[in-house]
Amino acid sequence: MIDPGAFVIDPWRLIEPELDLERLGHSESIFALSNGHIGLRGNLDEGEPHDTPGTYLNGFFETVDLPYAEGGYGYPELGQTLLNVTNGKHVRLLVDDEPFDVRYGTLERHVRTLDMRAGTLERDVVWTSPAGRTVEVRSTRLVSFVQRSIAVIQYEVRALDGPARVVLQSSLVANEPLPATSDDPRSAEDLATPLVCEYHTSNGAEVSLGHSTRESGLRMAAALDHLVEGPNGVITTTDVEDDLARVTFSTELRQGESLTLTKYLAYGWSASRSMPALRDQVDAAVAAASRVGWQGLLDEQRAYLDEVWDHADIEIVGDEQLQQAVRFALFQVIQASARAERRAIPAKGLSGRGYDGHTFWDMETYTLPALTYTLPHAARDALLWRHEAMPLAKERAEELSLPGVTFPWRTIRGEECSGYWPAGTAAFHINADVADAVRRYVHATDDREFESGAGLELLVETARLWAGLGHHDAEGNFRIDGVTGPDEYSAIADNNTFTNLMAARNLLAAADAADRHADRAAELDVDDEEVARWRRAARAVVIPYDEELGITPQSEGFTRYRRWDFDSTPEEHYPLLLHYPYYLLYSSQVVKQADLVFALYLFGELFPLEQRRRDFEYYERITVRDSSLSACIQAIVAADVGHLDMAYDYLRETALVDLRDQASNTAEGLHLASLAGSWLAVVAGFGGMRDDGETLAFSPRLPPQLQRICFRMLYRGRQLQVELSPETVRYTLRAGEAVTIRHHGEPIELSCDAPTEVTWTPSEPVPPVEPPSGREANRLGIGADAPDPIH
Amino acid sequence: MIDPGAFVIDPWRLIEPELDLERLGHSESIFALSNGHIGLRGNLDEGEPHDTPGTYLNGFFETVDLPYAEGGYGYPELGQTLLNVTNGKHVRLLVDDEPFDVRYGTLERHVRTLDMRAGTLERDVVWTSPAGRTVEVRSTRLVSFVQRSIAVIQYEVRALDGPARVVLQSSLVANEPLPATSDDPRSAEDLATPLVCEYHTSNGAEVSLGHSTRESGLRMAAALDHLVEGPNGVITTTDVEDDLARVTFSTELRQGESLTLTKYLAYGWSASRSMPALRDQVDAAVAAASRVGWQGLLDEQRAYLDEVWDHADIEIVGDEQLQQAVRFALFQVIQASARAERRAIPAKGLSGRGYDGHTFWDMETYTLPALTYTLPHAARDALLWRHEAMPLAKERAEELSLPGVTFPWRTIRGEECSGYWPAGTAAFHINADVADAVRRYVHATDDREFESGAGLELLVETARLWAGLGHHDAEGNFRIDGVTGPDEYSAIADNNTFTNLMAARNLLAAADAADRHADRAAELDVDDEEVARWRRAARAVVIPYDEELGITPQSEGFTRYRRWDFDSTPEEHYPLLLHYPYYLLYSSQVVKQADLVFALYLFGELFPLEQRRRDFEYYERITVRDSSLSACIQAIVAADVGHLDMAYDYLRETALVDLRDQASNTAEGLHLASLAGSWLAVVAGFGGMRDDGETLAFSPRLPPQLQRICFRMLYRGRQLQVELSPETVRYTLRAGEAVTIRHHGEPIELSCDAPTEVTWTPSEPVPPVEPPSGREANRLGIGADAPDPIH
Repeated sequence: MIDPGAFVIDPWRLIEPELDLERLGHSESIFALSNGHIGLRGNLDEGEPHDTPGTYLNGFFETVDLPYAEGGYGYPELGQTLLNVTNGKHVRLLVDDEPFDVRYGTLERHVRTLDMRAGTLERDVVWTSPAGRTVEVRSTRLVSFVQRSIAVIQYEVRALDGPARVVLQSSLVANEPLPATSDDPRSAEDLATPLVCEYHTSNGAEVSLGHSTRESGLRMAAALDHLVEGPNGVITTTDVEDDLARVTFSTELRQGESLTLTKYLAYGWSASRSMPALRDQVDAAVAAASRVGWQGLLDEQRAYLDEVWDHADIEIVGDEQLQQAVRFALFQVIQASARAERRAIPAKGLSGRGYDGHTFWDMETYTLPALTYTLPHAARDALLWRHEAMPLAKERAEELSLPGVTFPWRTIRGEECSGYWPAGTAAFHINADVADAVRRYVHATDDREFESGAGLELLVETARLWAGLGHHDAEGNFRIDGVTGPDEYSAIADNNTFTNLMAARNLLAAADAADRHADRAAELDVDDEEVARWRRAARAVVIPYDEELGITPQSEGFTRYRRWDFDSTPEEHYPLLLHYPYYLLYSSQVVKQADLVFALYLFGELFPLEQRRRDFEYYERITVRDSSLSACIQAIVAADVGHLDMAYDYLRETALVDLRDQASNTAEGLHLASLAGSWLAVVAGFGGMRDDGETLAFSPRLPPQLQRICFRMLYRGRQLQVELSPETVRYTLRAGEAVTIRHHGEPIELSCDAPTEVTWTPSEPVPPVEPPSGREANRLGIGADAPDPIH
Repeated sequence: MIDPGAFVIDPWRLIEPELDLERLGHSESIFALSNGHIGLRGNLDEGEPHDTPGTYLNGFFETVDLPYAEGGYGYPELGQTLLNVTNGKHVRLLVDDEPFDVRYGTLERHVRTLDMRAGTLERDVVWTSPAGRTVEVRSTRLVSFVQRSIAVIQYEVRALDGPARVVLQSSLVANEPLPATSDDPRSAEDLATPLVCEYHTSNGAEVSLGHSTRESGLRMAAALDHLVEGPNGVITTTDVEDDLARVTFSTELRQGESLTLTKYLAYGWSASRSMPALRDQVDAAVAAASRVGWQGLLDEQRAYLDEVWDHADIEIVGDEQLQQAVRFALFQVIQASARAERRAIPAKGLSGRGYDGHTFWDMETYTLPALTYTLPHAARDALLWRHEAMPLAKERAEELSLPGVTFPWRTIRGEECSGYWPAGTAAFHINADVADAVRRYVHATDDREFESGAGLELLVETARLWAGLGHHDAEGNFRIDGVTGPDEYSAIADNNTFTNLMAARNLLAAADAADRHADRAAELDVDDEEVARWRRAARAVVIPYDEELGITPQSEGFTRYRRWDFDSTPEEHYPLLLHYPYYLLYSSQVVKQADLVFALYLFGELFPLEQRRRDFEYYERITVRDSSLSACIQAIVAADVGHLDMAYDYLRETALVDLRDQASNTAEGLHLASLAGSWLAVVAGFGGMRDDGETLAFSPRLPPQLQRICFRMLYRGRQLQVELSPETVRYTLRAGEAVTIRHHGEPIELSCDAPTEVTWTPSEPVPPVEPPSGREANRLGIGADAPDPIH
């Protein structure tokens, strides 16, 4: 785990005060820049040393074989892996005869700063070459939120202590050698030279390369143009070949003089458009960016982020590290999604190649809830991607002899790429997760046009799946047998409570939407009988209950399973799935991640407070959080049932997951769901926000560790602000029409005229509950040097 | 499915009246010869045409990688595959200028006969070459039951219609090219040239080759000596190289003259002995066989089989095809096991490379029950192989964090080679199957020396597994959760009735044996407390029951699952696992093979007759028999509960599985378990034989289709004969001390003085029950052109 002092604490910036070559992979992920379309890992400008070079285009993948020792019907035979595309980040520097390389000479200063308001990564270096010449290097990098195809880098080198011959080389490099991936079963596939050159060209200091993939049939182009400012006599030369386009700038600096290079980098890719079209596209993008210029791009970037922070910021007083971490988390959610525009949002954003760049249920369940109330257009875009992938999901359902659609457990484009069906295909809840994201988006935005179009189709076809997946038994109960819920230490279980409740909600949401949009529903062949069947199934869904224990089982029979022997489980045996067979995990009462507890959050209204607390405490004792998807949900329910200390600890664990490298695998990419989960833990946890589609409700609670929490959110065209302080909660309608909300169940009318302040009494503290030994909140990662193979 | 007329019906011989090139693979398996150590597929002497050349040595395998799209802890990474070893069967014939090849010229006659009393495969051919010369070829092949390393072939060619220049070439060929295996996920791996030459040598007409494997580190040697008889002037030449040792005999025959070649073929292999030692061994074996000579080997073979048939034959009157099929089945069981001698008995014997030559639970559960009462030394040997593999099973258990042993689901040498854990590792019942085979063997033989040695260890270590696998819940019930029973259309289920009952029996058998052999048990660290824990667990084991339906569920919750829509399942969608995903199968009430019904057979005393009948009929309606392991068990329980017509049909299906190629994959090898199941269906089904270790019991029933069933068996040193005829049952003690048996529950004292005849009243017929449409007994295979990937 990273030393908490590795980053300077600052509310708006993440500052790395010195370079740690042992943690390069971690910093490459932490300092990755992205706009949801382009992702640049935080590799050093000069390319080396590196952990993993990474330049990604959302959706640009290669096809790989999925092998099986024993195959089976319906097993996907082809996988997809996110490709490291043509790298345009390189700026190599030669000082006199010495290449600038942080491993040689003396690094007098090396500070990197991720500025979350500017949307830039800055680097400030003073380096003395092995021959004794000292230079200052400052670079600033941004991936534009405004110009989607554009990244830009300004690189300045100054001779500090005497004259220096200086050469800068800026290049596009395709098929970079990559380090071998780990033994982690879910790491990215190794692919040696996946890109085939289609064209290479240069025009002065402007260069461009076009490549296609061997198997997946995708095409991409990258273009680079340069502006150089410095003393007279800069000589520019250009070399272009299949996998390299390089522009070299050579000059001599007198002491104090500097050479400044601005490079405009554009990317484009397509499965259908021709290479000439892509080439024109990237050249045009470079032209547009150059016209705006460096300062113009910086200004656009800040203006974009100013607006986002203005309506989405979270302020925390009382824990500066948490303040920084929560802003970092939200910034990463924005980076991963802002301009994804009808492409999937991968589990790691575009920050690394972990999980092969795949998208899972995390997107709808963790990332979209945060986006829905902060960047709703991005939530809409992501759901439109799901909608566009419906034909593939329909084919997959047909392959499985099921009605409706079955969305893939893991994918880049939409095809199922999961190679282990008990934790893939059988996790049918992803379909209800998609439907719930539709429902939530419509609740939060009232976007009826979306609801009647893509939304209705998504709801109807997922409802059809559930109607076919479940069945009414002899007594009329609606059962869903042999499926896998969120907890990946259980699988192939009957009547998973989370899944059953989500399915019922999916069925009702489809029925309600079909009633509201009867004409559109008729076009989808929905008739009254089908709607009635959905409602009947939803009403009859089985919710297991263990009368003896007074506990809601995660799935039927779960509370009768063998109890895990935590006392005999050494800390180095976590994550358990790397040390115990699935059989033992599945047949034991040991929980990887919130499952029944997730249901307590999403369906709190169905469980009285006492039941919620009893269930939470029961599962708390057997939940090991070997998944980064767990702590945020536990934080929400802990806050809900009164365990405020725990909620605070879990919020910290969630928000700091990557800054502290708690799963020891941030080098493979950020844990986007956990980061988005920080927003959830604050807003749904301490804010107690719930949205039933009728009235937006809050049940705020402030943990004793904090003096203030203030969060802003969007709701049906309005801007809201909620401020929690020890004695009062203040609700402010910052923009939009008056609205009635609920505060701990009581209706409150908000208008823009003035804030509404409510005095409250903190809830009684409840006696603490102990998680499994060694798995206490905010302590994970200690001793865990193994990667977390399933997030 | 093979035309029933493909074989001439004969009680002791299987006669193929003409060669069908379309069915070569089938006949190669049907006509395979083996003694349990050497296996020779029924390939034509001249090698071509062929479906799959096959020469196997029991236990001689190569290691292969097992790949996974998504790996997991405890997944086996190395598999094992039975190798096609050096082929010594070839005799190539050149007549004048024409090679004898059945695809060219005219085949005037081609008759092959498997003689089940002689233990030989005969071939009788008249062939006219394309040039018009007609010759008669007669060959006889045997794999010796008496001389374990020896096979011998006599090959005679006679010039029928004029003089002929004749050349015979007899060879050893290593690394024969093999056809690619099918897409069947469980077919053998392709291995191009697995054998590396270690030596090759010749001495006159005697040749020998030694090879080793690349990965598994095994060594083998093959030697060949020849005796040639014919007109003077036979010229003999020898060629030897790495992968070929060939002896050529050339002569000229006048009309009516013949040339006769006798070839003595010896094999040896070892993981530990040196190549010189193996070479000596095979040369010595050839020397010993030559000394006995052709007629001597024939005589020994017949004498061996005479004795086996004398105490193990089954006579059936009223269905000649069934008579032939049942003897064929028993003959194949003998071939697969007689001289296996502490090697595994593979699911396909040594008749083909299906399932990679692996051994499964079939061995203990289907093959050993037949052997235990017919060839008990072979049953003992097989159990000693399990015992010798215990260190590997102990390692595997430790890997899985389990106590005791976990035997591999599939293996050649003892390592787990299963690549799909829900139907491999999770099928823990194999451990109780092994224990039950120990218990049965001791019951049937009273072999207390075995019991106190290997038997006790097997019982104790398997009992320890169950004690750790299950647990007592809050009410004290002993549960075994998340395991897979026999039915492979279910998996990862709680409290599988078969598994729980078998586990309880395993625990009690271990406890009883530990009590009987207290000193030996103490050496295994068994103390009174452990024994008491076993007995407590066994007494408390959960047996699910559905009170509403009055049905015993196959596992907890099973009777609440979705019913399979048989009416919408077209016949070409069987076997279902090739057309539907595991998810759908596992969560539906559809049964591949007897599971709960298997428990009704093995634990009949726990279920009153009415319950057995109700359960049988319930499961009969949902059992599709996509496994060849099912029909024989259904036959037994059908007979038990009064469905005699069904029992008869299922017996026929079982016994004819390979002769009629009912699964369309006999070409990959025989279905040994189903063949052994014919014995079970006759003896435990119509004979109603049960052996509880106290009194051997019979409850005979004769189906209306048959006039007589007479079976012989061994029991604790005695030879018994039971004859069923429509009015009477006659029990004969043919040798051994007097014994009390039970007839339909009534004790009867048998002595060698005279048979005991009991008059009986046939049971009342019960109304028929319908299996799923299209899956009626004895009709399987119609329309099923796909292989059965999991037997």
